[in-house]
Amino acid sequence: MTLRSVTLLGATGSVGRSVCDVVAENPERLAIETVVGGRDAAALAALARQTGARFAALADETAGEALRAALAGSGIANGAGRGAVLEAVARPADIVVSAISGAAGLEATFAALAPGRALALANKESLVCAGEAVMARAQAVGARLLPLDSEHNALHQVLGGEPISAVRGMTLTASGGPFRSWSAAEIAEARPEQALKHPNYAMGAKITIDSASMMNKGLELIEARFLFGLRPDQLDVLVHPQQIVHGLVTFRDGSVSAGMAVPDMRVAAAHCLGLDGRLDAPPTRFFDLALQEPLAFERPDLVRFPALALAMAALAAGGAQPAILNAANEVAVAAFLAGRIAFPGIPALVDAVCAEAASARWSAPRDIAEALAIDHDARRRAAALLSQGPFAVT
Amino acid sequence: MTLRSVTLLGATGSVGRSVCDVVAENPERLAIETVVGGRDAAALAALARQTGARFAALADETAGEALRAALAGSGIANGAGRGAVLEAVARPADIVVSAISGAAGLEATFAALAPGRALALANKESLVCAGEAVMARAQAVGARLLPLDSEHNALHQVLGGEPISAVRGMTLTASGGPFRSWSAAEIAEARPEQALKHPNYAMGAKITIDSASMMNKGLELIEARFLFGLRPDQLDVLVHPQQIVHGLVTFRDGSVSAGMAVPDMRVAAAHCLGLDGRLDAPPTRFFDLALQEPLAFERPDLVRFPALALAMAALAAGGAQPAILNAANEVAVAAFLAGRIAFPGIPALVDAVCAEAASARWSAPRDIAEALAIDHDARRRAAALLSQGPFAVT
Repeated sequence: MTLRSVTLLGATGSVGRSVCDVVAENPERLAIETVVGGRDAAALAALARQTGARFAALADETAGEALRAALAGSGIANGAGRGAVLEAVARPADIVVSAISGAAGLEATFAALAPGRALALANKESLVCAGEAVMARAQAVGARLLPLDSEHNALHQVLGGEPISAVRGMTLTASGGPFRSWSAAEIAEARPEQALKHPNYAMGAKITIDSASMMNKGLELIEARFLFGLRPDQLDVLVHPQQIVHGLVTFRDGSVSAGMAVPDMRVAAAHCLGLDGRLDAPPTRFFDLALQEPLAFERPDLVRFPALALAMAALAAGGAQPAILNAANEVAVAAFLAGRIAFPGIPALVDAVCAEAASARWSAPRDIAEALAIDHDARRRAAALLSQGPFAVT
Repeated sequence: MTLRSVTLLGATGSVGRSVCDVVAENPERLAIETVVGGRDAAALAALARQTGARFAALADETAGEALRAALAGSGIANGAGRGAVLEAVARPADIVVSAISGAAGLEATFAALAPGRALALANKESLVCAGEAVMARAQAVGARLLPLDSEHNALHQVLGGEPISAVRGMTLTASGGPFRSWSAAEIAEARPEQALKHPNYAMGAKITIDSASMMNKGLELIEARFLFGLRPDQLDVLVHPQQIVHGLVTFRDGSVSAGMAVPDMRVAAAHCLGLDGRLDAPPTRFFDLALQEPLAFERPDLVRFPALALAMAALAAGGAQPAILNAANEVAVAAFLAGRIAFPGIPALVDAVCAEAASARWSAPRDIAEALAIDHDARRRAAALLSQGPFAVT
């Protein structure tokens, strides 16, 4: 087995830590060479020392001094700011893991696509905001895209080597989040600390709120569309509270293949990192179906979870709508977490921004610069609508 | 798409009829050229006319005259007896479907292995009785083996192109049969007409009785062992009454891929026959998980279903034990259907024959002649034990 080098973008987040665990379990197969974080210098420096990385970069330029100080005497090269992140991405690596949260990960993810490289993608915004451009670029340079989200990884695995023409449709499962069995009236009163209680995964705040609103599943549908090259009407969501089945591929001949695993991001991470063949997981990462409660599936309730309906509309509309939806949602989630809007204000604000944009029918961004321009414009409009007040908590 | 020619062995059985349905649904892709049956001349003649076959053969030589008469004026060449079956197998075909029930299918299945051909295998006895020999022969001549049993087909699909070294284990599911929730005392009194009521599939009598005793699942474990090249301890059974999941592959890294379909043999048949890409199934052959009851899984009860335990022991012992188990079971099932022994007499007789043979430690048959010799010897001993009376209904 060859020792594979790994560049880890978004190293200090929950996906980044899962990747570090898997690398640590397989020291003879994997080595982390480069780590990139957002703004937490102390956490990144500790991680760089712990993983034996040779280069560490922070996106936040103002944290550069703190990082330098924290890595003093370690021999680990480091830098901060956009240039340092792109330098990190340009360093040699067999596998780049893109696990930066939000549209902030777009540029680095795009830059990481290089000939012969595997890109393990957890930054769903790259595909949501610039799906056509990212897929075209990966194809053009000969990079291998491996989905790291549990759902997409499951779908990728069970699709196997088959052409997409063999597929009738794909289904992504959703836990249903903390509000799965709440009434609409209860959801309307939900406070941030309630929305932050995900039933199965410990994740960052943004994605946890998105799980509570089910916007996360909508973004994943859009991601799946580009990743696999499906029509919007071939994609579907089922709520599956046990979170053992993560995705299902229905083939044209009636066979259905389901990707399953314990709800632990390290399983999908291990699949992506096992380039030369499957890695071995510890016994705790296997499950016994005979000890599980039966696996239940139900349709999502688009009335109580309108964010999912909005995402499905953006998926169907195509063009720039997914990028606009995503930007508006990022602004809305931040406003909810800051106590500026109520939980139903999230889909309301997203709906307002998307409706405004829909008439303009912007076409899909052709590159990252266009995607970022669409993103910034949508954020600006979301912020303006927010400040006008109709979405504010009364 | 090329038009693929099909030779159908076991044409008048339940699997054979499923194959005919799928071929009829895809006339531009598939054509049945040759049909082979057991002894029912009228049924085979009708099927040959209906499918447009050019050659029809019956295994039973005494039925040759009836077949000739039934096909008079059709222009369909025909014959009966061992020579006619082997002539049928030797005729050109892209795909040979081996769906003869029981050890009777061994010779024809082995003879069907030819360079470049696809052999869709539903005759599990070929692998149970002569697994090493069949797999070695398929490899040596360059034939492609496609499993047609729902369970093995599901496992084959979700394994995809991965090497068996990637696999931690495989699980076959079982419906549990008509006696799943019966007490041991009730099972002891089971009459043939009760054992013949399978909850999900309409199949032949032999396999339906095997489902009731769970011997069928044991034979499938042995089949899977050879088909996929697994160790006995890598194979496992779960009872799954909904019969939507047919098989699960657990990979070393914690990912599990499950093969699902409605309980309809035409789904696996369509997968095998779709050599150039998946065939299209009619809408009725898809299922909606949201409308299903939850999918439940439980360990099989080896006390109430000792036949499964006996098969597992034969699987672990290897050598000639699987062939001996299978032969004894065929004799026992026939005796049960004839009212000569009670239902628990089936595993009791099989156990007695296997125990007698175990001390001799016969090695695995190297070819079909050896497999048939072992089979005949075990039948003889089973018949002798039967006639001595301890298993007879009192």
